Amino acid sequence: MKILLPDTMPLSPALPEGWEPVVVDARAEIPAEHRDARALVVWGPSRRHLASAASSLPDLEMIQSLSAGIDAIEAAGFAPSVRIAAGAGLHSATVSEHALALILALVRRLPESAAAQERHEWSRELGGVQELHPADRITTLLGADVLIWGFGEIGQTLAPILRSLGATVRGVARSAGERSGFEVIAEADVAAALRGTDVLVNILPATAATRHAVDADVFAALPDRALFVNVGRGDTVDQEALRTALETGQIRAAAIDVTSPEPLPAEDPLWDAPHLLITPHGAGGRPVGADARIAENLAAHVAGRPLYAEAPRG
Amino acid sequence: MKILLPDTMPLSPALPEGWEPVVVDARAEIPAEHRDARALVVWGPSRRHLASAASSLPDLEMIQSLSAGIDAIEAAGFAPSVRIAAGAGLHSATVSEHALALILALVRRLPESAAAQERHEWSRELGGVQELHPADRITTLLGADVLIWGFGEIGQTLAPILRSLGATVRGVARSAGERSGFEVIAEADVAAALRGTDVLVNILPATAATRHAVDADVFAALPDRALFVNVGRGDTVDQEALRTALETGQIRAAAIDVTSPEPLPAEDPLWDAPHLLITPHGAGGRPVGADARIAENLAAHVAGRPLYAEAPRG
Ligand SMILES: NC(=O)c1ccc[n+]([C@@H]2O[C@H](COP(=O)([O-])OP(=O)(O)OC[C@H]3O[C@@H](n4cnc5c(N)ncnc54)[C@H](OP(=O)(O)O)[C@@H]3O)[C@@H](O)[C@H]2O)c1
Ligand SMILES: NC(=O)c1ccc[n+]([C@@H]2O[C@H](COP(=O)([O-])OP(=O)(O)OC[C@H]3O[C@@H](n4cnc5c(N)ncnc54)[C@H](OP(=O)(O)O)[C@@H]3O)[C@@H](O)[C@H]2O)c1
Repeated sequence: MKILLPDTMPLSPALPEGWEPVVVDARAEIPAEHRDARALVVWGPSRRHLASAASSLPDLEMIQSLSAGIDAIEAAGFAPSVRIAAGAGLHSATVSEHALALILALVRRLPESAAAQERHEWSRELGGVQELHPADRITTLLGADVLIWGFGEIGQTLAPILRSLGATVRGVARSAGERSGFEVIAEADVAAALRGTDVLVNILPATAATRHAVDADVFAALPDRALFVNVGRGDTVDQEALRTALETGQIRAAAIDVTSPEPLPAEDPLWDAPHLLITPHGAGGRPVGADARIAENLAAHVAGRPLYAEAPRG
Repeated sequence: MKILLPDTMPLSPALPEGWEPVVVDARAEIPAEHRDARALVVWGPSRRHLASAASSLPDLEMIQSLSAGIDAIEAAGFAPSVRIAAGAGLHSATVSEHALALILALVRRLPESAAAQERHEWSRELGGVQELHPADRITTLLGADVLIWGFGEIGQTLAPILRSLGATVRGVARSAGERSGFEVIAEADVAAALRGTDVLVNILPATAATRHAVDADVFAALPDRALFVNVGRGDTVDQEALRTALETGQIRAAAIDVTSPEPLPAEDPLWDAPHLLITPHGAGGRPVGADARIAENLAAHVAGRPLYAEAPRG
């Protein structure tokens, strides 16, 4: 039995008895000689690849995605009998590391240091004897109130690191409660929490319900000293409202790894918004633990057990 | 009994019975009416302040410094009977946070993202589908080998955070052994360790023995992909060798919070070295837990017990 592996990353999963791995071009149609494949691993596919897989693999039983989001796979038209597993958790370490890099760059005012360096200026404002908690700025995570909006796999990986750096961390999700030792607020109650937030971290997925979740009202509710970081999806933020908030000083600074659309067009005014760092969707992009996940889920499939992060179908 | 507190930061330590706090200008001479002070807290003093304290406080019994280094106090000429306590550990949280910010900025290539942003360019090299471990670059701390040269209070605060991000961390100190669960190499053996080092973090104090500890030989021994961060003292690095290493691609990038001299003169070529981030000694500069340390050490002094971080005298 064949499992098709993408050529977009090196993979060598342990496979159950009788299974044979075949590497295929993830940007091209499925070659005719592999129409008998029973399983498919998806990473960085072209639309053509997915469409071809959906229409030309009659024996396909399961798909293992290596990305967290499976909207493109779900939209490709696979038969309802095909089981689909999302790559949940494979990006938690890399995306939370990038979020931390962006948060600390803002907290430690690295863009301002770079500007001073360009002027060959040893800035007295950025170094030397300082206040620990100036009234109008966040200059350390010690004692800072961090709110993570979208408190799933990535959020729960990031939260303990921020706590170990001295921050007080709360999450926002669809329902309230405690998760992995952190207080989680329901989305309906986010407005009240924003007023005391020093750092707002957005790790929301793109869904109909999250579109422009972070809008002008959110920026208005945040204190002027607040920092905003987005490693979720660009569509969850009203970018015009973000730009206005930065231009008017409604928030202090922001850093985003995701925009809407992507790539951000060269003429978009967001590129030049003040106090804004943009990275080009570089947080994740490299699944960690993919071989183990493929092995685990193919074995589960063969045994007729539920898959890890299996999507409801039908 | 009087304890003099500096006006350079807000302080309100709990004091033993019979002690009275008096705030004095840390940049000026000790006022005549406070010549009866028994204890002195030092933070951001001018040389004049220290000299005046050394010559005009005949009843002085102890000094609590709030900085880690006490070389200026030791040089000021206090009577050998005056006990001196260094501010050990008061800067560990802030300096390790800054070191982490610098490390992650290099690992996550934030300066390159900033340059692409300036060009309004959504760089395909900095985002999208990526290799987890490209041969020639460090793009994540996952699996990275970090060497912390100077493995004292700050290094041992930073090390567990880097480990929690997936790095393998070793220290370098004057003697080998295990400290807080990390392998520590003796300085004499550092050369062999450099060859496999992805990120070298310098947290050395400035002493006669550490001057230019990081020199051309060190940069030559590091792999081309290596990143270098210095939050210790500028004098421990041969800056010309650092500049050459960056210019010739002997190491990939560096970030330094300390230089020699400070401020770095506007005409110093280091400002324009490629792939170098400079922050103006902003890592620490704000003691954390100063009130508790003053209270603890004044109580210890009154009780005739050893002080925390008491310097040998005489
Ligand atoms: N920048 C990058 O390179 C990169 C890489 C990978 C992923 N991502 C993005 O990160 C997102 C999160 O990944 P993950 O693995 O953490 O996903 P996850 O485990 O599914 O977590 C998503 C979180 O968002 C919450 N959420 C969903 N809809 C919400 C709403 N309407 N209001 C409030 N909260 C809502 C969920 O709440 P419940 O827990 O209540 O369901 C959950 O806590 C992905 O969807 C993707 O868009 C970005
Ligand atoms: N950038 C900033 O804002 C900032 C702020 C505060 C401090 N600092 C700097 O950070 C330094 C370290 O602070 P800390 O609190 O961690 O000091 P610490 O606890 O005294 O630790 C110093 C470490 O350096 C090691 N060391 C000293 N001389 C050495 C040598 N010749 N070879 C190898 N290792 C040597 C010591 O080794 P042993 O353990 O074997 O003695 C110890 O591990 C301070 O001295 C200061 O210069 C910078």
